[in-house]
Amino acid sequence: MTQDSGLNTPNSYASSGVSISEGTRAIDLMKAAVKSTHGPEVLAGIGAFGGMFDASALKQMQSPVLVASTDGVGTKTKVAARMGRWDTVGQDLVNHCVNDILVQGARPLFFMDYVAAAKLDALQIAAVVGGMALACKQNGCALLGGETAEMPGVYVDGEIDVAGTIVGVVDRANALDGSHIVVGDVILALPSVGLHTNGYSLARKVLGELDWSQHYDQLNGTIGEALLATHRSYLSAYDQLVKAGVAIHGMAHITGGGLPDNFDRILRPDLAGVFHTGSWPVAPIFDMIQELGQVPAAEMFHVFNMGIGMCVVLSKSQADAAQKALSESYIVGEIVSREDGEAQVQIVG
Amino acid sequence: MTQDSGLNTPNSYASSGVSISEGTRAIDLMKAAVKSTHGPEVLAGIGAFGGMFDASALKQMQSPVLVASTDGVGTKTKVAARMGRWDTVGQDLVNHCVNDILVQGARPLFFMDYVAAAKLDALQIAAVVGGMALACKQNGCALLGGETAEMPGVYVDGEIDVAGTIVGVVDRANALDGSHIVVGDVILALPSVGLHTNGYSLARKVLGELDWSQHYDQLNGTIGEALLATHRSYLSAYDQLVKAGVAIHGMAHITGGGLPDNFDRILRPDLAGVFHTGSWPVAPIFDMIQELGQVPAAEMFHVFNMGIGMCVVLSKSQADAAQKALSESYIVGEIVSREDGEAQVQIVG
Repeated sequence: MTQDSGLNTPNSYASSGVSISEGTRAIDLMKAAVKSTHGPEVLAGIGAFGGMFDASALKQMQSPVLVASTDGVGTKTKVAARMGRWDTVGQDLVNHCVNDILVQGARPLFFMDYVAAAKLDALQIAAVVGGMALACKQNGCALLGGETAEMPGVYVDGEIDVAGTIVGVVDRANALDGSHIVVGDVILALPSVGLHTNGYSLARKVLGELDWSQHYDQLNGTIGEALLATHRSYLSAYDQLVKAGVAIHGMAHITGGGLPDNFDRILRPDLAGVFHTGSWPVAPIFDMIQELGQVPAAEMFHVFNMGIGMCVVLSKSQADAAQKALSESYIVGEIVSREDGEAQVQIVG
Repeated sequence: MTQDSGLNTPNSYASSGVSISEGTRAIDLMKAAVKSTHGPEVLAGIGAFGGMFDASALKQMQSPVLVASTDGVGTKTKVAARMGRWDTVGQDLVNHCVNDILVQGARPLFFMDYVAAAKLDALQIAAVVGGMALACKQNGCALLGGETAEMPGVYVDGEIDVAGTIVGVVDRANALDGSHIVVGDVILALPSVGLHTNGYSLARKVLGELDWSQHYDQLNGTIGEALLATHRSYLSAYDQLVKAGVAIHGMAHITGGGLPDNFDRILRPDLAGVFHTGSWPVAPIFDMIQELGQVPAAEMFHVFNMGIGMCVVLSKSQADAAQKALSESYIVGEIVSREDGEAQVQIVG
């Protein structure tokens, strides 16, 4: 008996809501983009059960440590759906993950994606994965594999979820964990380009009734453009700091939970970080959300990055060298000693 | 200004449908289970931006290759929801991923999970992740990190998606890719315990109207039990074969697409695999689906594993040794030379 797809039979997979062929079509469409991220380290990719990545280079390290992070883009996919634009959320996700392991000093090796929807749309999935491939290339990272799942009844019709896992490596002596941070250090902020990938449920609630394609002078563009602005990767900024001889004491990627729930992750209990509002620019989309939604300032800082995508902690004596290396960076605060009961992250006017 | 969660404010994250505290509660509940999978290789886990895994052991290998696979459990989550049982789908997922890299000869190092829902239910998520932790322990694999996402409007209320990524390693000389398979080799089948993680959309469609908690003599249990039977890991079976001195020529994990779309992945174009139906047992749940749904046999083999969870290809001369090592295994077919136009996977009565 020869096996056929049998999609015309009484009770086929197609009639149960799962289309095997649309998945195959998506894979065909994304194949070239994915392959373009494969250097000689990739020994097996599309078609294999698992992706294979040559890790011989790790043998040259003193004490190689793999660093891995899994994340999604949350309901930024709903913004993409409303704008009918699917090429950016994949970039958001990869850059987000690159930043998450960068704060531990790790460089990306490879990325694995997961895209799921109630019904697969090959062009849409190919655009999402194409965006991932583009960002992977920009970060010197292989898009090694992934999974595309069609799950009728689990996802709302027309919605899509985009998640992924990054794996990178750092030699143990170069790993960052904030343990070198001392009182008197300064906090260098690397600006975000907008919401990055956090706070979209609140943003959509506040801005939902407005026309997202209308030009707003205060935004210098549309709401749709402002909300879809691509999450920045800070890998090249990191490289520039290292090249300039800056000794980084700690880094924090500002994502869900904002400064209060992220900057504290690299601080010992006896330290606090003081941030001075006004010392860095805040994109106008944040002002718009705060005003229209009457959102208290504390809540804004707890949900959004509020203009700071990455915090780098370094000696005050190296602040000038760091700012010279990175034209777009701001000294936004300093490390102080913390008394019992005080907040670890203090945002002062 | 000290940062508070601000969840009682006019436009808070909570009022937009995202509950930060339920996510935190889930993390608290699952912390112990996750930690129980952490050996000395895990340098940073819960709370860090990325999980850190000491890869110094790779330096002892000649040519270490990282093998990674991402997968989900598909709509098996809908069966879990109907049965109100959340401790098994996590095990399904981990075992599935372990098998996916095992066919390339890789042993698991660590696993990263992704769980998402319209609304987080801490107990439910903790049960799912607890299942993952259990399976990780059984497979000697660290549950290194993950992401729990709450996405109102993307997921159908009450539904959940469970996905993950496994990373393992194999020394290049030991990697399996089927290139050693030759004409005359035999196919050893390791039995599945049921559907594993594939074909649930069709199964639910056919069986949806029945009582899943009623005892069926033919199933020796209920439909709910049969459908939730946990995806087997074949890691220990593989170890037993290797220990018995069996030289494995190739392995194929039988998942979505069944034998026709999985066994061909390890065959050169000039080879075909012939499977003899009747030479292995097929669980009664498959017969029930086929009969009630009037599903053609070809379609059954294309959607379900039909009783074969893993295929191992080896020399005919080692068949006895292999079957002695694994009491529950069946010689189900052989490798033949393939003419142009013939199917690579032939299932004959």
